[in-house]
Amino acid sequence: MTAQPLFALTAGEPAGIGPDLCLLLARQAQPYPLIAIASRALLAERARQLSLDIQLIDAEPDLWPSAPAPAGSLYVWDTPLAAPVVSGQLDPANAGYVLETLKRAGQGCLDGHFAGMITAPVHKGVINQAGIAFSGHTEFLADLTHTEQVVMMLATHGLRVALVTTHLPLKDVATAITAERLARVTRILDHDLRSKFGIARPRILVCGLNPHAGEGGHLGREEIEVIEPTLEQLRGEGLELIGPLPADTLFTPKYLEHCDAVLAMYHDQGLPVLKFKGFGAAVNVTLGLPIIRTSVDHGTALDLAGSGRIDCGSLQVALVTAYQMADSRR
Amino acid sequence: MTAQPLFALTAGEPAGIGPDLCLLLARQAQPYPLIAIASRALLAERARQLSLDIQLIDAEPDLWPSAPAPAGSLYVWDTPLAAPVVSGQLDPANAGYVLETLKRAGQGCLDGHFAGMITAPVHKGVINQAGIAFSGHTEFLADLTHTEQVVMMLATHGLRVALVTTHLPLKDVATAITAERLARVTRILDHDLRSKFGIARPRILVCGLNPHAGEGGHLGREEIEVIEPTLEQLRGEGLELIGPLPADTLFTPKYLEHCDAVLAMYHDQGLPVLKFKGFGAAVNVTLGLPIIRTSVDHGTALDLAGSGRIDCGSLQVALVTAYQMADSRR
Repeated sequence: MTAQPLFALTAGEPAGIGPDLCLLLARQAQPYPLIAIASRALLAERARQLSLDIQLIDAEPDLWPSAPAPAGSLYVWDTPLAAPVVSGQLDPANAGYVLETLKRAGQGCLDGHFAGMITAPVHKGVINQAGIAFSGHTEFLADLTHTEQVVMMLATHGLRVALVTTHLPLKDVATAITAERLARVTRILDHDLRSKFGIARPRILVCGLNPHAGEGGHLGREEIEVIEPTLEQLRGEGLELIGPLPADTLFTPKYLEHCDAVLAMYHDQGLPVLKFKGFGAAVNVTLGLPIIRTSVDHGTALDLAGSGRIDCGSLQVALVTAYQMADSRR
Repeated sequence: MTAQPLFALTAGEPAGIGPDLCLLLARQAQPYPLIAIASRALLAERARQLSLDIQLIDAEPDLWPSAPAPAGSLYVWDTPLAAPVVSGQLDPANAGYVLETLKRAGQGCLDGHFAGMITAPVHKGVINQAGIAFSGHTEFLADLTHTEQVVMMLATHGLRVALVTTHLPLKDVATAITAERLARVTRILDHDLRSKFGIARPRILVCGLNPHAGEGGHLGREEIEVIEPTLEQLRGEGLELIGPLPADTLFTPKYLEHCDAVLAMYHDQGLPVLKFKGFGAAVNVTLGLPIIRTSVDHGTALDLAGSGRIDCGSLQVALVTAYQMADSRR
């Protein structure tokens, strides 16, 4: 029997629900060895707070497990905190700890120890407060892996939505949709659907930028001047692209039944439908990286840390998605 | 027994599926007298084409019916075509006919003959080709009724979405969200939810303009500078407004369960979710008019005219919504 692939799960912001999610998840066995990267002391204390009896098993380089942990136990790569944690209370002193967990997971993927990494939520604000420039998991991992362009994709059962632009003020979106950016993002989406999702010939539905996809130029000319010529060029490279289509009719069964992903031009054009459809069971996948990385689609929920009143749905989907991606890749 | 309220149904573009929808609908009886405003000859010919046996009963001013038509029959206010119609083939010669049906319905509402009007789809392009400036039902009815500001709202079971801006290129949206416009639209939405939907104290969820509703100014400042102060002012007038909220988390049960309508800042922020949720059963309601007007949420579907392969779902919802609005109003 060959060793099974390992996966890394970063517990994220220690005062948030990330540690809780790791512990709640450990009540069931996973199909692959899954290693929480977190403070062991933090997990033990949070388990006590939640009245959960989870056995924490040390795991680290040169001491990797060869089989999944049984139900009720969790592999932990102990990563020490800088300061004790109070559930729900942010402390900039632990910003370095959070980044260390990400570095261990990302570098472990690059070094081939892990087949993929799954991330619980971090809190950008408190990391910045600690004087560390940090704009999110995605950018951190792009830096770590020397990746120029990453693509944010959210997925839930039956729907994947990738974005050409992400966290931009709305007024800046139209000028950010350049032919070059659109081509780069679309190629990455197509490439990763093939290489990480095992889809032989991905069919991608592309939204227009303007309402009604510009209605023949009456409601904006970006479709005519930028989007259509770019899609035409990419079709010449063998990509199967449908659109640009009006975003308000694209998300209907007639179109969605025959597509592998939707490419939306901006955040609030694509994500409201995705999160409406997949509420509590959506996963955020970073495409374009040389590693597999999935994430929950929610925040740190500081007010719920230690309460037990949380739902592991999104983390479950993030895990299953990472496993499936790794399977497709092998 | 007092006379029942009458409703007008305009058949829209004669080469499209509007006439088919009127005929298919007439297979069942309606709860109120419903009068199709269309060419009687057109309806007779389309019925023949569809092999539908629908009795057409003349109705016109001074000859209004006092009871609903029985199943299998349809009241028609005969409005003559300018040229014979071939299903699926647009003809600018009939542009005047289309507008005449709208005028009869709209003026009939203003004059108190009709309690409301329901519109089948028109084709803007062919009316413009005929040399008539026309940008849609909504603008036409705003002119006819001397209404300065109308508000587009789409509704389906369990969700209503109104828009601050509608058919604008995306690049122009941010500057169009002025305090004045937002206040006017929000007041109309609140007013009409009370007066036309019988909601005593409407709760309205308001989307931010930017992703994550601007994330405290990091992703755009319109929330801080325009939206929040305007909502605060309107709250002072007694409106119950929640937000601005991120559009991608607002459309989830936690928020939607306790609201009467969502106010989206622009077309593709609000309508993809609405049409995803309500596919084939959504209605377009024009707020701000002194009359009740609802519409199907789809186009003329020229290729399906005369085919019989169409779904009356959206028209059914448009009718029921108009009836309910008229009931709330009385």
